[in-house]
Amino acid sequence: MAYLQSMPKCETIEKREKYIGAACQLFFRSSPLKIVRGIAQFMYDETGERYLDCINNVAHVGHCHPHVVEAGRNQMSLISTNNRYLHDEIVVLAERLVNTLPAPLSVCFFVNSGSEANDLALRLARVHTKKKHVITLDHAYHGHLTSMIDVSPYKLNLPGGPEKPEWVHVASVPDVYRGKYQYTRDSNCEEELGRLYADEIGKICNEASQENGGICAFIAESLQSCGGQIIPPDGYLKRAYEYIREAGGVCIADEVQVGFGRVGSHMWAFETQDVIPDIVTMGKPMGNGHPVAAVITTPEIARSFADTGIEYFNTYGGNPVSCAIANAVLDVIEEERLMERANRVGNHLLSRCEGLKHKHRLIGDVRGRGLFVGVELVTDRETRTPATVEAKHVVNRMREEKILISRDGPDSNVLKFKPPMVFTTQDADRLVDTLDRVLLELGGDWMPMPNLKLEVRVTPISNEVETSEAVIQSSMKQGVKAM
Amino acid sequence: MAYLQSMPKCETIEKREKYIGAACQLFFRSSPLKIVRGIAQFMYDETGERYLDCINNVAHVGHCHPHVVEAGRNQMSLISTNNRYLHDEIVVLAERLVNTLPAPLSVCFFVNSGSEANDLALRLARVHTKKKHVITLDHAYHGHLTSMIDVSPYKLNLPGGPEKPEWVHVASVPDVYRGKYQYTRDSNCEEELGRLYADEIGKICNEASQENGGICAFIAESLQSCGGQIIPPDGYLKRAYEYIREAGGVCIADEVQVGFGRVGSHMWAFETQDVIPDIVTMGKPMGNGHPVAAVITTPEIARSFADTGIEYFNTYGGNPVSCAIANAVLDVIEEERLMERANRVGNHLLSRCEGLKHKHRLIGDVRGRGLFVGVELVTDRETRTPATVEAKHVVNRMREEKILISRDGPDSNVLKFKPPMVFTTQDADRLVDTLDRVLLELGGDWMPMPNLKLEVRVTPISNEVETSEAVIQSSMKQGVKAM
Repeated sequence: MAYLQSMPKCETIEKREKYIGAACQLFFRSSPLKIVRGIAQFMYDETGERYLDCINNVAHVGHCHPHVVEAGRNQMSLISTNNRYLHDEIVVLAERLVNTLPAPLSVCFFVNSGSEANDLALRLARVHTKKKHVITLDHAYHGHLTSMIDVSPYKLNLPGGPEKPEWVHVASVPDVYRGKYQYTRDSNCEEELGRLYADEIGKICNEASQENGGICAFIAESLQSCGGQIIPPDGYLKRAYEYIREAGGVCIADEVQVGFGRVGSHMWAFETQDVIPDIVTMGKPMGNGHPVAAVITTPEIARSFADTGIEYFNTYGGNPVSCAIANAVLDVIEEERLMERANRVGNHLLSRCEGLKHKHRLIGDVRGRGLFVGVELVTDRETRTPATVEAKHVVNRMREEKILISRDGPDSNVLKFKPPMVFTTQDADRLVDTLDRVLLELGGDWMPMPNLKLEVRVTPISNEVETSEAVIQSSMKQGVKAM
Repeated sequence: MAYLQSMPKCETIEKREKYIGAACQLFFRSSPLKIVRGIAQFMYDETGERYLDCINNVAHVGHCHPHVVEAGRNQMSLISTNNRYLHDEIVVLAERLVNTLPAPLSVCFFVNSGSEANDLALRLARVHTKKKHVITLDHAYHGHLTSMIDVSPYKLNLPGGPEKPEWVHVASVPDVYRGKYQYTRDSNCEEELGRLYADEIGKICNEASQENGGICAFIAESLQSCGGQIIPPDGYLKRAYEYIREAGGVCIADEVQVGFGRVGSHMWAFETQDVIPDIVTMGKPMGNGHPVAAVITTPEIARSFADTGIEYFNTYGGNPVSCAIANAVLDVIEEERLMERANRVGNHLLSRCEGLKHKHRLIGDVRGRGLFVGVELVTDRETRTPATVEAKHVVNRMREEKILISRDGPDSNVLKFKPPMVFTTQDADRLVDTLDRVLLELGGDWMPMPNLKLEVRVTPISNEVETSEAVIQSSMKQGVKAM
């Protein structure tokens, strides 16, 4: 692949150090990867080495999907101007997105990034409610903009991080493994845990409504990503939303990382919690790498915004190329039945990770929905002490095995998997088998479990690049697996 | 061009009204244009009608320039991932941009929009200076984000606009025609006017330094765009920057609208004022329509930002496709010598508009640099009463003549021309000749001037689509023109 670079890697590094702000950090800083090619769930470095990409939730329908590339190219060669002119691509995209959402979410604003989307969402909330206080979740990350750092404890909590504004209130993240209320310790009932966490929102609402300003909004990812791949307990968002609405605030679902079918069972992750937000933001996967994002809200909130008389103009937002590309991404999700695949492959990945947990003491928790999976490493299952160093080692070892994963959470001890949606069960098996080996290297804490089950998992075949024989062979190679 | 639409225009309008926020306004609201095709300086509606585009400064090197489209397509089909991986396109782009800038501006951050760039610029300024107060110019517009509206009197001044934060200070815009200090009335010396305006900055610095917080930054477009195509008097920015630096603040030049050679004489508009900013932001023309923007600063400021230890990550910022496209735009600016053209065609346009001013009392002022030109309409030259209604009429009549212009300024009475840089002298002549006719229709205020000069302007030929014969014919048709 050397022909896909214009200079040797050492020179790229040298120029990067010279010309790009050091605050822009590289993966694998001591030995960064130079990536020159991407196909589906694979990325290639300048030597032609192939990596299985388990973290790129932006390349949603697969790196360089030809249908998306073609749509971009076609529209780029026709017209790309701003949305002060009429164009079909933008209205088609808007209608299609609205059709994936429950009523009354039906009015769209197109922007260029998830950060811009969340910023606009807060503006809409402020204009609509005329209120002040915003509730966010601990460890949440909603974007790199000034206004988003204000509501992102993921940044605010850092040493040297900016100060939290007084109008921002941080509620505990509904993490039933490591959070304030834990499964088993505090309750064996998920709904009870959901209530406990949601009641914190209620408490903040009460306090803030007594203060000057009132509750403007609650912003939360439907499943928290940077915070450590958190799956909230059943009933959490429903009850939290009730508190917010009672207080006169609006509910913003940040679907930037987890939307567009990643959870498999639904197009939008908030649907897994059986709620309807007032404002939904979406981004990353929307353009398969192209900078496009959106805010979708109710006619009432959109009307409040328009009634200010102040135009909302976003130069590139909703341009025909961005919209054509986003439409092509929707085409692929539908045509290649990627939600069904996310469900199937995600369940396979999750259950295989569960299997690993029964084998390796280092794994404290396994959680996920579809192709959004977290594996939390701990040095001690009782104390749940984060295995941060081990997690770092695992990520680096996996890279040596040509598998790209990363880690997150406040203690950087949660391995995260959020691969392109074309990920196959074979890929999942390769990921888990390799992880198994890497964890074994870390020490002899093999843990024979009492209820070992013989399992040869044969996954039903769809349009993915695998045959039943391949699947069986793969499963046979894995042999006996702990469930 | 009907084949370039997927539904009839009435249906597009209907869906737009239904699905797109009404705060997103259309040009020509009562009869909006549906644009389906763009080539160089022309746009085409769904019936195939061709419009001369005199306002699209985003389609900088011409709509759908094949070299840019090809660069986008190529890179899209290879890889587009985030800048946590090394890639050549980003470092090549950074090096090329830095080479266009004076030292010490040499460290780049890539983002997706001018708004994101200005937001980051303010973050950099805050982290570096650890100070609070920001000075902006009246009528300035720096972006649609919450943080940018805070420093955009263009929005703050509107009825129903948000409240100006106490740390934002608004200095008079250095508009020597309509501003606080006017040419002739207050001084005949441009430098004296520059001093008067800059001294306002000095005054704010004195006041703010006494308050808690100190001066963090001065943010200003090098030539104010939305404010009404303002050309500051000589020496203004130099003196203003001196005050800011004495107060310990940093100077941010917003080149989002006016950069990339539009002024003809220089690549960056701040260079016309002989200053070196501490932070430069760029956007709109950078990707010829593709969402890409940048912040370039000094190693010291970039170091302060990195020293916080907080990573700056922008998902799409600096992705290989955005960078390849921006590199292609730079190629075209160089290869087609578009700065030289902006200078030549811009001077022609400016002098022909000056000619119109001598003929039509409605024209109060003509100003510009390169292909950034403003024609300010007034109902009375003595009182300088803004001819807002007339300006609206002119824009609508020009549209009927298939020429797209727009108007801006706090009174919406400044006709603005900022066409794609491939604009030719023929285009300029067509624009001015049509404007001449439209202004004549508005009333019989033909104004024969005492010093009429015979002029048949023959422009030297370059690579633009015009021949000397065509130019001469065009000039002959125009016949005698007032200078």
